[in-house]
Amino acid sequence: MSESLHKPLRKGEQTRASILEAALVIASREGLEGLTIGSLAERMGMSKSGVFAHFGSREELQIAVLKLYHHQFEQEVFFPSMREPRGLPRLQSLFRRWVDRVSREIASGCIYISGAVEYDDRPGPIRDQLAGMVRTWQQSLQRAAQQAIEEGHLLPDTDTAQLVFEMYGLLLALHHDARFLNSPGSVARAQAGFARLIAGAASVRRQP
Amino acid sequence: MSESLHKPLRKGEQTRASILEAALVIASREGLEGLTIGSLAERMGMSKSGVFAHFGSREELQIAVLKLYHHQFEQEVFFPSMREPRGLPRLQSLFRRWVDRVSREIASGCIYISGAVEYDDRPGPIRDQLAGMVRTWQQSLQRAAQQAIEEGHLLPDTDTAQLVFEMYGLLLALHHDARFLNSPGSVARAQAGFARLIAGAASVRRQP
Repeated sequence: MSESLHKPLRKGEQTRASILEAALVIASREGLEGLTIGSLAERMGMSKSGVFAHFGSREELQIAVLKLYHHQFEQEVFFPSMREPRGLPRLQSLFRRWVDRVSREIASGCIYISGAVEYDDRPGPIRDQLAGMVRTWQQSLQRAAQQAIEEGHLLPDTDTAQLVFEMYGLLLALHHDARFLNSPGSVARAQAGFARLIAGAASVRRQP
Repeated sequence: MSESLHKPLRKGEQTRASILEAALVIASREGLEGLTIGSLAERMGMSKSGVFAHFGSREELQIAVLKLYHHQFEQEVFFPSMREPRGLPRLQSLFRRWVDRVSREIASGCIYISGAVEYDDRPGPIRDQLAGMVRTWQQSLQRAAQQAIEEGHLLPDTDTAQLVFEMYGLLLALHHDARFLNSPGSVARAQAGFARLIAGAASVRRQP
């Protein structure tokens, strides 16, 4: 647990963190709209008012769950990739770690992907929060692609927004085929698609 | 209206068809799980028992809505493309008409795409019906790609399942970016991705 790396949490903070972890499990399975104070209290063996003491409203809880998800995504996908060399190695690491994460989420569901469909017709603070996170993630990918151009790994005329659009499509297809259709081999298909995408934009045939 | 081409519907069939059209509007906006006999009765200005007289259960209604959606999809995308010459022209028509349909559905939502997320963790007859339809559609695309190989339009070693996986990804990314993120230019991105995909597999540089 990452908590052990930080200063010990106070009792109230510990309880809040445990509630949030349980809420994330429910939201991954049932969707953010399937997350209710009632179901969460039942899972935690707490009273509803006990949960309300930590989160003033259902919406506040849903947004806290989104922030926890975002934090975990950054820890697993973004930050480790930032330790890779600028350019293609970093872009490839971002994609590989993203695929790894989504393939581990096949059983539970990815909140970014499921949430996009859940909230595409529900305006409000949760949609805004989620869309902001997804845009931040797309911008990180685009920045990494731009740096790959600057490093001379990708051709100067590479359309980075187009590249990110297609990378996102590969991840969505992986999530769709593996989770909804139970199609085997979807991870390999996403990887093959990305390899082809990069080969088409690479400045040299053999990667550095 | 296509009804005028067929023999006149009896009164009961007309009412059933009107209910079904209204149900499809609700399901496109709220999801198939958001479709209730109550909301439908209200929209139709009918009693709940009036709706039940035409559909024995909510599940029967949901499956009838899926079948209507599938029928419309075939009429708009599949059958007109079958009139194009076998091979690449047919495959390109399938993709173009699919993109057209999804771009018109940006405001309402595509039931195949939204339904996949809605039912990916809900086993049962609705999921089975929907997954069967999506698989049928993917197989139609794959058959058209296979024929494009046979006609000599695509390279013999083209992996048609990979091609369809990536085509699906482009449509999912279009739906995601246009509907959830309100990103402009998503249709052009999906088309550019497809053009690149075909260029990579085409047996000659200039398309027939």
